[in-house]
Amino acid sequence: MIVGVPKEIKVAEQRIALTPAGARAFSDEGHRVLVEAGGGAGSGFRDEEYVAAGAEITDVAGVWDKAELVLKVKEPLAEEVPRIREGQTLFTYLHLAPMPDLVRALGARGVIAIAYETVERADGSLPLLTPMSEVAGRLAVQEGAHYLGGAYGGRGILLSGVPGVPHGNVVILGAGTVGLNATKAALGLGADVSLLDVNLDRLRHADDVFDGRVVTIASNAFNIEQAVRRADLLVGGVLVDLGGCVETIRPTTLLEPVYTLHSVLHYGVTNMPALVPRTSTYALTNATLPYALELARKGPARAVRESAELARGVNLWRGRVVYPAVAAAVGEKPLPLDDLR
Amino acid sequence: MIVGVPKEIKVAEQRIALTPAGARAFSDEGHRVLVEAGGGAGSGFRDEEYVAAGAEITDVAGVWDKAELVLKVKEPLAEEVPRIREGQTLFTYLHLAPMPDLVRALGARGVIAIAYETVERADGSLPLLTPMSEVAGRLAVQEGAHYLGGAYGGRGILLSGVPGVPHGNVVILGAGTVGLNATKAALGLGADVSLLDVNLDRLRHADDVFDGRVVTIASNAFNIEQAVRRADLLVGGVLVDLGGCVETIRPTTLLEPVYTLHSVLHYGVTNMPALVPRTSTYALTNATLPYALELARKGPARAVRESAELARGVNLWRGRVVYPAVAAAVGEKPLPLDDLR
Amino acid sequence: MIVGVPKEIKVAEQRIALTPAGARAFSDEGHRVLVEAGGGAGSGFRDEEYVAAGAEITDVAGVWDKAELVLKVKEPLAEEVPRIREGQTLFTYLHLAPMPDLVRALGARGVIAIAYETVERADGSLPLLTPMSEVAGRLAVQEGAHYLGGAYGGRGILLSGVPGVPHGNVVILGAGTVGLNATKAALGLGADVSLLDVNLDRLRHADDVFDGRVVTIASNAFNIEQAVRRADLLVGGVLVDLGGCVETIRPTTLLEPVYTLHSVLHYGVTNMPALVPRTSTYALTNATLPYALELARKGPARAVRESAELARGVNLWRGRVVYPAVAAAVGEKPLPLDDLR
Amino acid sequence: MIVGVPKEIKVAEQRIALTPAGARAFSDEGHRVLVEAGGGAGSGFRDEEYVAAGAEITDVAGVWDKAELVLKVKEPLAEEVPRIREGQTLFTYLHLAPMPDLVRALGARGVIAIAYETVERADGSLPLLTPMSEVAGRLAVQEGAHYLGGAYGGRGILLSGVPGVPHGNVVILGAGTVGLNATKAALGLGADVSLLDVNLDRLRHADDVFDGRVVTIASNAFNIEQAVRRADLLVGGVLVDLGGCVETIRPTTLLEPVYTLHSVLHYGVTNMPALVPRTSTYALTNATLPYALELARKGPARAVRESAELARGVNLWRGRVVYPAVAAAVGEKPLPLDDLR
Amino acid sequence: MIVGVPKEIKVAEQRIALTPAGARAFSDEGHRVLVEAGGGAGSGFRDEEYVAAGAEITDVAGVWDKAELVLKVKEPLAEEVPRIREGQTLFTYLHLAPMPDLVRALGARGVIAIAYETVERADGSLPLLTPMSEVAGRLAVQEGAHYLGGAYGGRGILLSGVPGVPHGNVVILGAGTVGLNATKAALGLGADVSLLDVNLDRLRHADDVFDGRVVTIASNAFNIEQAVRRADLLVGGVLVDLGGCVETIRPTTLLEPVYTLHSVLHYGVTNMPALVPRTSTYALTNATLPYALELARKGPARAVRESAELARGVNLWRGRVVYPAVAAAVGEKPLPLDDLR
Amino acid sequence: MIVGVPKEIKVAEQRIALTPAGARAFSDEGHRVLVEAGGGAGSGFRDEEYVAAGAEITDVAGVWDKAELVLKVKEPLAEEVPRIREGQTLFTYLHLAPMPDLVRALGARGVIAIAYETVERADGSLPLLTPMSEVAGRLAVQEGAHYLGGAYGGRGILLSGVPGVPHGNVVILGAGTVGLNATKAALGLGADVSLLDVNLDRLRHADDVFDGRVVTIASNAFNIEQAVRRADLLVGGVLVDLGGCVETIRPTTLLEPVYTLHSVLHYGVTNMPALVPRTSTYALTNATLPYALELARKGPARAVRESAELARGVNLWRGRVVYPAVAAAVGEKPLPLDDLR
Repeated sequence: MIVGVPKEIKVAEQRIALTPAGARAFSDEGHRVLVEAGGGAGSGFRDEEYVAAGAEITDVAGVWDKAELVLKVKEPLAEEVPRIREGQTLFTYLHLAPMPDLVRALGARGVIAIAYETVERADGSLPLLTPMSEVAGRLAVQEGAHYLGGAYGGRGILLSGVPGVPHGNVVILGAGTVGLNATKAALGLGADVSLLDVNLDRLRHADDVFDGRVVTIASNAFNIEQAVRRADLLVGGVLVDLGGCVETIRPTTLLEPVYTLHSVLHYGVTNMPALVPRTSTYALTNATLPYALELARKGPARAVRESAELARGVNLWRGRVVYPAVAAAVGEKPLPLDDLR
Repeated sequence: MIVGVPKEIKVAEQRIALTPAGARAFSDEGHRVLVEAGGGAGSGFRDEEYVAAGAEITDVAGVWDKAELVLKVKEPLAEEVPRIREGQTLFTYLHLAPMPDLVRALGARGVIAIAYETVERADGSLPLLTPMSEVAGRLAVQEGAHYLGGAYGGRGILLSGVPGVPHGNVVILGAGTVGLNATKAALGLGADVSLLDVNLDRLRHADDVFDGRVVTIASNAFNIEQAVRRADLLVGGVLVDLGGCVETIRPTTLLEPVYTLHSVLHYGVTNMPALVPRTSTYALTNATLPYALELARKGPARAVRESAELARGVNLWRGRVVYPAVAAAVGEKPLPLDDLR
Repeated sequence: MIVGVPKEIKVAEQRIALTPAGARAFSDEGHRVLVEAGGGAGSGFRDEEYVAAGAEITDVAGVWDKAELVLKVKEPLAEEVPRIREGQTLFTYLHLAPMPDLVRALGARGVIAIAYETVERADGSLPLLTPMSEVAGRLAVQEGAHYLGGAYGGRGILLSGVPGVPHGNVVILGAGTVGLNATKAALGLGADVSLLDVNLDRLRHADDVFDGRVVTIASNAFNIEQAVRRADLLVGGVLVDLGGCVETIRPTTLLEPVYTLHSVLHYGVTNMPALVPRTSTYALTNATLPYALELARKGPARAVRESAELARGVNLWRGRVVYPAVAAAVGEKPLPLDDLR
Repeated sequence: MIVGVPKEIKVAEQRIALTPAGARAFSDEGHRVLVEAGGGAGSGFRDEEYVAAGAEITDVAGVWDKAELVLKVKEPLAEEVPRIREGQTLFTYLHLAPMPDLVRALGARGVIAIAYETVERADGSLPLLTPMSEVAGRLAVQEGAHYLGGAYGGRGILLSGVPGVPHGNVVILGAGTVGLNATKAALGLGADVSLLDVNLDRLRHADDVFDGRVVTIASNAFNIEQAVRRADLLVGGVLVDLGGCVETIRPTTLLEPVYTLHSVLHYGVTNMPALVPRTSTYALTNATLPYALELARKGPARAVRESAELARGVNLWRGRVVYPAVAAAVGEKPLPLDDLR
Repeated sequence: MIVGVPKEIKVAEQRIALTPAGARAFSDEGHRVLVEAGGGAGSGFRDEEYVAAGAEITDVAGVWDKAELVLKVKEPLAEEVPRIREGQTLFTYLHLAPMPDLVRALGARGVIAIAYETVERADGSLPLLTPMSEVAGRLAVQEGAHYLGGAYGGRGILLSGVPGVPHGNVVILGAGTVGLNATKAALGLGADVSLLDVNLDRLRHADDVFDGRVVTIASNAFNIEQAVRRADLLVGGVLVDLGGCVETIRPTTLLEPVYTLHSVLHYGVTNMPALVPRTSTYALTNATLPYALELARKGPARAVRESAELARGVNLWRGRVVYPAVAAAVGEKPLPLDDLR
Repeated sequence: MIVGVPKEIKVAEQRIALTPAGARAFSDEGHRVLVEAGGGAGSGFRDEEYVAAGAEITDVAGVWDKAELVLKVKEPLAEEVPRIREGQTLFTYLHLAPMPDLVRALGARGVIAIAYETVERADGSLPLLTPMSEVAGRLAVQEGAHYLGGAYGGRGILLSGVPGVPHGNVVILGAGTVGLNATKAALGLGADVSLLDVNLDRLRHADDVFDGRVVTIASNAFNIEQAVRRADLLVGGVLVDLGGCVETIRPTTLLEPVYTLHSVLHYGVTNMPALVPRTSTYALTNATLPYALELARKGPARAVRESAELARGVNLWRGRVVYPAVAAAVGEKPLPLDDLR
C-alpha cells in the first residue's frame, strides 16, 4: 500500500504523523511511504532520516495524489480538503462533531475517515488519546510552575521551596491519566500535592503508586472549595480536551497562554502537547503505528472487520457518516458498522 | 535599636529584607521596626501583616531617617545613597568590588556596611549566599524545561518523556549547592541527569543522596565535551553569580531571558531568585535574621567583635574600607579587623 | 491417595517437585507421601526434614510402584518411562510437542499426564510457568553482570559504575514477567536500563512500578537497533523458553554457558532456574501445590472436571492424547476435554 | 578485673547495664563478670544466657562486694549507696547536679563515679546519650499516634489517613537526634510532618535524608505559632531530658502517661526508653561497651588518662568531685582532671 | 427527600453517618438534611458546621419522625427500633445474620433496610467494607507497636530498633486490604515484615508495591509455624470481622483491649476503626455518600432497580427479608430481588 | 614534561594508568604523552583514541626511555626494573613493605617512587585507594551472588528470592567504603542485609543512607557469630587488601577464584577490581589524574613541597627510602620529608 504523510499546516502545529522509525516499519513490510519535504522539521526529524528509513520525500501534491492511506495529526484544513481523493483512507485526529461543514465536505469526497480520538477498546479506554493526556498532565505542572514566577504574573513562589521555606501547594482535580501524570510532575518538583477524585479506587491506586506522598481527597463541592482555597496551583484534570473543568477557564494559545481573572492567573492552552512536538510526535506515533500498519496490511475493509477497536474509530466510510455523534451533528442516520466493506 | 526596612527600588526586584515573622522576632526583643509602606507587596506581604507582627509602617524618609540598622536586599542605588546617615549600619547584598564609585560614596557618608555575600564561616562557607544558590539551582531546571518548549525556541522536548518515549538529557556542571539543587529538580522532572565535578567526594555524596539515580562523571575537558554533546539542557552550576561557567553565556533579564547563539538557546538571567520573590524573601531572611538580631542586640561593634563570621562581612566601617578586595578596587589600604570599634 | 516424589535424574537438574512444607500439606490432609531418598539434596532438603513433615523415604522403585500421583519437575527420561504404571497420574513439566516418541511411549503406558506448562487460567496466563520466568528474569541480569567481567570474556564493566564513572547500559526486550524481573535486577545493580515492548500499557506499568527509573521505549526494528547498539548487556525477555528472541543465540548449558559470536559474548542457558535449585524448588512448588492437592483430594477425573485450569493442563488421559498441539505432533485426533473421566 | 552488674531497682526500670553479648566481650578478654540473678529479666535475657556468655550469676551482695567496676543504668538509690566500696568504679547514668545529697553520700564512700551523660567527644557530642535520644524520638511519635485514639483522650485521628482522607499533621520542634528520629517515625506512619529548627544546615540535612518529604521551617516564634495551630501531634524535641521545650508540659510516668490541659492531651513521660527495655538495653550497651572495656583493660586511672572522652565523664574521683557543674551544686571546688590517678 | 442522621448510641461508638461535606452534597441537590444535635461531636464536628453546610439540627425524635431515609453507622439498638416508621429506608451496617430477633423486629416495622456490608460489586468486592479494612489494617500495627511496650505487657521492643539494634519482626497473615495496609504501617514503623498468603498473585502485587521491602511467603501450615515462631507481632488479616484467623483470639474492647494467654499478649478489639472516629467517619462517608445520594435522588425502588450493587445491599424490603443469609437465619424464604418495588 | 604510560604486564592485569581523557588533560597543558601500543586494549581503549587525545603511541622502550614521569598501575616487575632511569618519577601502586628486594632495586636505580596507596589526606583518608574499595565492595556481592549458584558450588539460592520465596541473607562485616558499597549492591539484588561495625556512627550513617532497609548490628564476637550462622553470603569488608578479616580465607585468583573449606565456598580474589578493568581504569584515573597533573606541572620536588597529600605518598626519593614502614622493611632510616628536593 502507498502511505502518505503530509506536513501539518495548522498554525503552531509542529508534530508529524510518522517518525522515521515508523517509516521504517512500513517499508520493512513492503509498503511505499511518501513524506512531504520538511514535514518532520518541527519535530526535529530531517528529510534524510526518513530516506534512510526507506521513505521517499516528495511535495504536498505528491503525497496526496498517490497515497492510499494518509496519516495526519490534525483534521484536514480548508486548503487540504480538495486534495482528498475518492476512497482514500484518512487516519488522524478529527473531532468532527462541532464541524458539520467539514463532515459534509469530507462526505462529498467519498473518504474513509478514521479518527484517532474514537478508536476505543472493549473496556472503554481510548488508546490514541492516552499519550496526549500523559504529555498534557506532565506539561500542565511544568508550565504552571513557570507562571508562578512573579515576573510572569504569578505569586512568586518556587514550588519546592528550599530548606526552611515550605513547599508550594498544588491541587489536582481528577485522578485519571492527566491527573496522575500531573501528580507525578508536581511531586517531582517538590510540591505538596492534593489529588481529588470521586472514585476512591483511583485514589487508592494513587496512594499506592505515589507511596503515600500525595494527599488524596474524596471529591465533592465542600472538599474542592477547601482545597482550592489553599492552592498555589490548580490543575483541572477532568475533561481537559473540552476546556477543562474550571468555570473561569477559557481557551488560550501557546503564544498568549495566560490571562488574569478575579486576581487569578489562568492558563488555558487547548493543545498543550504541541508545545513539545518532538516528544508528542514520538508518543502519538508509538500509539497509532500498530493500527496504521493493520490498515496498510489488510486494507481498511478487512482491518476494521477484524478489529473492533479500529471499527469504533471509523467516522466516515466512503463518504457515509458512521460515527453516531457525528451523524447526529449533521442530521444523518449513521451507517451501521456491519455495512463497512 | 531602631531597625529600618525600605522597599527595594531596583528594577524587577520584588524581594524585601524582612518578613513579618522577622519583624516579630525584632519586636519580641524590644526593638522598634520601621517598614516602608508597600515594601512587602512584591513578596506577597501586606502592610497589616507587619503591623500585626509589631512593626510600624512609614514612608521611605521615615525609614532612613530614624533607622540605626537598615536591612536591605540590594546595594543602595543612586537615589538611596543620599539618605544614608553617618554611623548608620547597612546590612545587605553589596557586591562592591566592581563599583568603586559606590564604595567612595558610601565611604563619604561614614556608613558601617556589612555585605551578606562576604559573611563567612570558619570552613569557608558563605551562609547568606547558600539560600539563593538553592533557589537558583532549582529554578534553573524549571525554567530550562519551559524553554525546551518548541514555541519558546527550544527543541520541543518534554524532559520526562512519557512511557515509550525516552527522557530528555540534562547535564549539570558542578556538584556544589547550585548543582545539587539543579540535580534534585531535574530528577524530579524525570530527566536523565549527568552531573560533573572535579571533586570525587562531591560525586560520592551525590551518588548517596540521589540513590544512584544520577550519572556522576569526573569533570575534565574530554568528559565535558562528550556529555554536552548529548545534552538537551545544560546547567552551568559553577560561578553562577559571575555569569556562569559557559563561554557563550551573557547576562539576560527576567523579561528578556533567552537568546539563541550557534543554534543553541541560552538563558542567562543574572538574578534568578528574583523570579520567585516570595520564596526568596523567606529563604534570604531565614538566613540573615540571626545575624541581624545579633547586630541589633549588641550594636555593630560588639557584634562583629564576638562573631568572626559577621566580622568577615564588614566591607566599610564608619566610612573606612575594610574588606580587602573592595579596598583593592578603590586603591585603599584596608582597615584591619582589629580596628573595628 | 498415595503421592510419590522421585529424585530428578536429568543432567544438572537439582530441583525436586515437593518441599517438606508441601509434604506436610499432603500428610495433614491424610495422604501418604513417598519421597525418594536423597531427592531433596540438590535443593538443600535432608531426608529427615521430609520425615518430620510426615513423608516416608523410600527407593526409586518404591516411589513409582506405589504412587497413584507422581509429582516431578522434568519429563520422564528413557529410564523412567518403564516405571510408569497404567492409570498413574503424572504431574510435571512435559513440553511434549517436540518429542513424539515420548508421547507414544507415555500413551502406551496408559498414563494420565498433566503438564505444568499448559495449566492455563481464563485470562490466558500460565500460573506454573510464571515463577520460573521470575527466577529466569532476575538471574539473567545477575549472570550477565558476572560475564561482563573481563576475565570471563566480557567488556570488563561493572554495571553500577562507581561515583565518577557512568553506569553500564542494559537493554531488555519485552516487558512481560521475564522482562520486568530482569529490569528489577538491573536497576538494583545500578545499571541504566532501557526496556522495549510493543505494548504501551506494559511500558506504562513499568514506568509506574519503577518510578521512572527505567527508560521505556516503544519496540520496533528501528528502536531496537539503536538501543542494542549502545547496550553493554542485552536481555532477550521474549519467548525465553524457546531459545530467546535473538537471532544469534543458541542453547548452552550451565557448565558451558557462554560463547562468543561476532565479538559478542552470548549466554544461552536454556534452563536457567536450575542454577538456583533451592529457590526454584520453593518457587515451583508454591505454584503447583494447590493444583496437586486438588488432584489428591478429588482424584484426577473430578479435579479436571471442576477446574478448567487443570483441565487445560491434561496432555494425555489414560494414554489418549488430549492436548491439541501434542496430538498434532503425533498425528492423532485429540480426545475432547468432555471425555475425561 | 571483676565487673559487676546489679539488677536495677528503680521503679519501672527494666533495663540492665550489660547484655549477654557484652558479658561475652568481657570474659573473652579474661575479665570476671558477675551478674545479679534475674537482672536481665526485664529486658528478656535469661540468667542462662549470661552463663553461656561466660558470666557468673550471683546475688546482689555478691555483685557489689566483689566487683571492682560496677556497671549500672540508673544512679544508685538509697538502698544501694551503702553497698558501694572505697575505690570502686561506678559507670552509669548519674545526673547528679540536682541531687547534692547523693553527691555527698558518694563522696563519703570514696567512689570513682563516671557518668554516661557527661562522656563527651571533642566535637561536643554525647555518645552515651545519643542512643536514648534515638529511642525517645521514635517512641514519641508511636505513643503520640496511640494517644490520638479517641478512646484514649485524643482527637480520634489516624495519622496516615486512608485514601480519600487526608493525613494527620505532626509538628516537630528541633532537628537534632530526637527530632530526626521522630521525623523518621512520623513519615513512616504516613503523617504530614513539619520540622522546625533555628539551624538551617540541620534542615538541609533533613531535606536530603528525607528526600523532600518533610516540610522544613525556620524556627521562630511566628512560625512555631502557625505550625502548632494546625498540628494534630506536637513533639518537643529540644531539651527532652529536662522536661521538653513546651511550657505546659509536666513530667508523667509510663503508667499514667497523659493528662489534659487547655483541652490538649499532654504526654510527659520523662524516661521514655524504659518503655522498650529490651531495645534500650541493646542500644545503651552498644554505646557503653567500648568505654567499659577500656576501664576494665587499663584500670580507671590509665583509661581516663588516655581517653579525653572518658575523662570528661568523671564526676567523682576517689570521693572528690571532679565535674564542674556537680561541684558547683555542692559548693565544692572541682578536682582538676590532671589530678586523676 | 428528607434525610435523617441520628447520633449513634452504641457504647464507645463515636462515628456519625454523615460529615458536613456530605450534608452539603445532599442540600446542594435540594434534599432536606436533619442531624441530631451533638451527633458529630465524637468525630469532631460541631453542630454549626452542619448548619453551615445546609443541614438542620434537631433532637432524636425530630430525626426519626421526619426522615424518609435514615443514615446510620450501627444497627438500630433496642431503644431505636420503636422509632422506625413503616416504609422508612435505613442505610447502615446491619450484620443481621446472628441477630434473628432484630430481623423480626425490623420486619414488623415494615422498614427498607439496606446494609453497608452487603453492598457488592460485580467483581465480588465490598466497597463499603474496604475503608474500614484500610483503617483496621493500619491501626492494627500502630496499636501492636504500642502494646509491645514493656509497661503494657509486651516484650519491651521498639519495632524499628535503632542503628546497631535489629528491627522487630512483624508477621502478617493475608495480603488482602487489611494485610496490605498493615504491611504499609509496619514497614513505615521500620519493622522487618513477613507477609503470607495462599495467593501468589497477591504476593507479587505486594512485592511490586513495597518494592521488595516485605518478605513474601506462600502460606501453608509449615510456613506459618516457622514465621510465627520468630514474630514479635502477629497480625491476623484474614476474616478480621469475624474475630480473626487466630485460634486463641477472643473479642475485646477498646477500653480493655488486651489479655495474655500462653504468655502471649492478645489484642482482639472487634471494632478497631471506632478508635479513630474522625478518620473513620470521613472514610466511611466517602464510600457511602454516592450510594446514599442515589437513594435520595431516585427513591429506594428505582435506585435498587438501577444499581445491582445497591440491590445486593437490601436486607429487608418493606418488612420482607431479602438477603438469603438473613432469611436463612430466621427461617424465611427470601423475597426475590425482582420483587423490590 | 614527558609523561609515559607503559602497558601493564602483570598476569591478568588489564588496567592502564591513563585514559584517553587523561591523555587529553596532559596534552591540553602542553605535556607530551607517550602510551605503549596496545596498552589500553584490556580496558577497551584503542590506540587511536589516545592519538586523538593528543598522545603518541610508541613501544615499551620508547615509553621508559623518554618519560620523565611514568604512570603505572602495578609495581614494576623484574623485567621492568632495568628500564627505570635515574631520577625518573614513578607514580603507581607499590605496596613495597613486603618486597624488600624490590625496594633495594628501585633504590639502586635512583628513582622517585610515589605510591598511590600512601597518598593520604589530613583526615587520614586514602583518596587513591577509595575508588578500588568502591569497585571491590560492589563486585564482592555480584560475584558472591553468582557463586551461590548450585552449578558453581553454592547453595543454589537466588538472593532476591521471588514473590512467595524469602530473600537470601547477606552479612557484611565493616561499614567502611567496601562495606557500604557491598551493602548497596546486596540491597539492589534484593537480599536481606545485615551490616556489622564497631562504630555506631557508621551504622547511623548506613541507616540514613539506606533508609532503614539494612539491619545494622553493633559488631562483637557474640553478634558476629549469630549473624554469620544465618548468612547465605558473608562479605568481609575489613582489611580487604590484606586478605580480609575472615580466618579461613586464603588468596585466590580471578581464574580459580573459589575453594571449599568446612563445606563453605570461599572466594578470596586479592585483586577484584582487575575483573572489571574498564570500570576500574576509569575509577583509578579519575582519582590519580589531579595528582599526576600536579607532578607534571610543577615537577616532583615542588609538587610534594606544596602538597602534603602527595608528600605522604613518596616512598623513595632519588633512591633514598622515605616512607617509614618501607624503611623499616629494609632496615634503613627514612629520609625526612623536609629533605625532598
